[in-house]
Amino acid sequence: MKKTKKVLILGGGGFIGRNLAEELLKDRACSVTVFDAAPGGEAPAGGRYEFVHGNFLVEAELEKVFKGRRFDAVVHLVSTSLPAGSAQSEMVYDIESNLVSTIRLLGLMHKYKAPRIVFVSSGGTVYGLPDRESGEKGILETHATDPICSHGIIKLAIEKYIQMHGYLYGLKYLILRISNPYGEHHASEVQGLFNVALRRALAKEPVTVFGDGGNVRDFIYIKDCVKAVKALMDRNVAGEVVNVGSGTGLSVNEALGLVKEVAGGFRIKREPARRFDVRRAVLDISKLKALTGFQPTPVLAGLKNTYNWLIKERKCRH
Amino acid sequence: MKKTKKVLILGGGGFIGRNLAEELLKDRACSVTVFDAAPGGEAPAGGRYEFVHGNFLVEAELEKVFKGRRFDAVVHLVSTSLPAGSAQSEMVYDIESNLVSTIRLLGLMHKYKAPRIVFVSSGGTVYGLPDRESGEKGILETHATDPICSHGIIKLAIEKYIQMHGYLYGLKYLILRISNPYGEHHASEVQGLFNVALRRALAKEPVTVFGDGGNVRDFIYIKDCVKAVKALMDRNVAGEVVNVGSGTGLSVNEALGLVKEVAGGFRIKREPARRFDVRRAVLDISKLKALTGFQPTPVLAGLKNTYNWLIKERKCRH
Repeated sequence: MKKTKKVLILGGGGFIGRNLAEELLKDRACSVTVFDAAPGGEAPAGGRYEFVHGNFLVEAELEKVFKGRRFDAVVHLVSTSLPAGSAQSEMVYDIESNLVSTIRLLGLMHKYKAPRIVFVSSGGTVYGLPDRESGEKGILETHATDPICSHGIIKLAIEKYIQMHGYLYGLKYLILRISNPYGEHHASEVQGLFNVALRRALAKEPVTVFGDGGNVRDFIYIKDCVKAVKALMDRNVAGEVVNVGSGTGLSVNEALGLVKEVAGGFRIKREPARRFDVRRAVLDISKLKALTGFQPTPVLAGLKNTYNWLIKERKCRH
Repeated sequence: MKKTKKVLILGGGGFIGRNLAEELLKDRACSVTVFDAAPGGEAPAGGRYEFVHGNFLVEAELEKVFKGRRFDAVVHLVSTSLPAGSAQSEMVYDIESNLVSTIRLLGLMHKYKAPRIVFVSSGGTVYGLPDRESGEKGILETHATDPICSHGIIKLAIEKYIQMHGYLYGLKYLILRISNPYGEHHASEVQGLFNVALRRALAKEPVTVFGDGGNVRDFIYIKDCVKAVKALMDRNVAGEVVNVGSGTGLSVNEALGLVKEVAGGFRIKREPARRFDVRRAVLDISKLKALTGFQPTPVLAGLKNTYNWLIKERKCRH
């Protein structure tokens, strides 16, 4: 009999984590432990699920989840910063929370012999301004990494520390540079263009657009995203940095057009362009495709699912 | 009349700083303020020199040096970590001291309108393991940056934050990836192969060698190094990352042979090779040459000067 694959998801109560836990639990050979600072919501169906409440930033709390448990893989989804925040106090907090805590995590994984880490990095920020060719054709994993926001610099530094632990201590790692995920279980009121626009449309409130709306982004449906993560984990891909996106660019204006198609009209509130927003950032996903046979869901289909989930979720709350 | 160029050297009391201050003060159009946590030694000849005692890690002490002074350029030489230290506690300290303090420095430079930073990064660690071609021909500035020690990761993260401040706030920057400097004013008892070997030879003590002594490094004479820094500053080179080295590789064994030639024989103590030591790391310095016409001093000449300085320094102490 195949051994159960025990996966710890740090920050597993959030948007990506909820979806990933569901995806992993579809596989009867997987068990999932979620560690999160927010109270645990409803457990996904299927059993083999455990929720541990604790703060990633407090080493003693993080250590508790390792004590007496054995994990085959740790998925690290915790992030305390947003791409937009690059004020000085935010930078220092970004460093002290995300980077220092991840160093401590790597120490604990070494101590408790957790052999594998999956780190969710940021496909939207680690590359910085794409060079001309990558701006047109899509950004490869080998592209220069010169972030223009603190969030991206810290994600990159974490990648480097993980790779160093791979080299020095044999830690198996998988670094995923994810583009802009949207879809079910996105509970934030402020993050994610599709998520925010759908919520504003439903609430009959205006959607804020920075600049002319011509900035182009790569949006990935969250169900595709977590399927890709599972597929890479199943294949034991290690020592690799992999872009996870749709590989297709949509301008903010095009994206909002689709939201209108799905959820009806809404007003737009224009704000000045932000200096740290890259003009065009679309990932080249040939590597992911070659490794897993990945095929993205058409965006309109993903968006309709998201809309239906959001309506249901709003009904439940009211 | 040309305006005096006011330069602040952070960590200016150390090895590179002492030499740089001397070099800058040869130019009558320069004035130098040194900020250092160690007590200030003898002031270099020529006047136009000021020493401010303070701790770079304490923001209020760092701010004092900016208050009421105006600087055209800030040279950042402070580093609290060594390439060898990658234990977990050292990593966390590395992050909290070097990285966080540099963020604060960038904030102060913005606040006090200091327009230019010269950052001394690490040509020996930021590149990590050179790819095959670079291992043979020398490492270009465009080489991948995958450090295998914490020191290198933090130097790299600092580079990224500086570049981000360049992009977002117009900070002029010059990032220097310096190889292994040796020469006068190297006061450390433990750092620098040439420095340590000369000191051990003079003290009739054994020199420790890790591994077979076949590791190849790029050694740069400190007088060449600071001349190069001055030349780049004089040309207002900005927005660039520049390798500063001799461009020539010497194995540890070859280097110790030269020390023997200069200082006489000594015993060698062999220790096992260290995993984080790169086999061959020699910089490609074509960019520096193109920008400044740089020509390195022959190593035997530099080494003799260093030896003579060391003998004089030992006499003064005894």
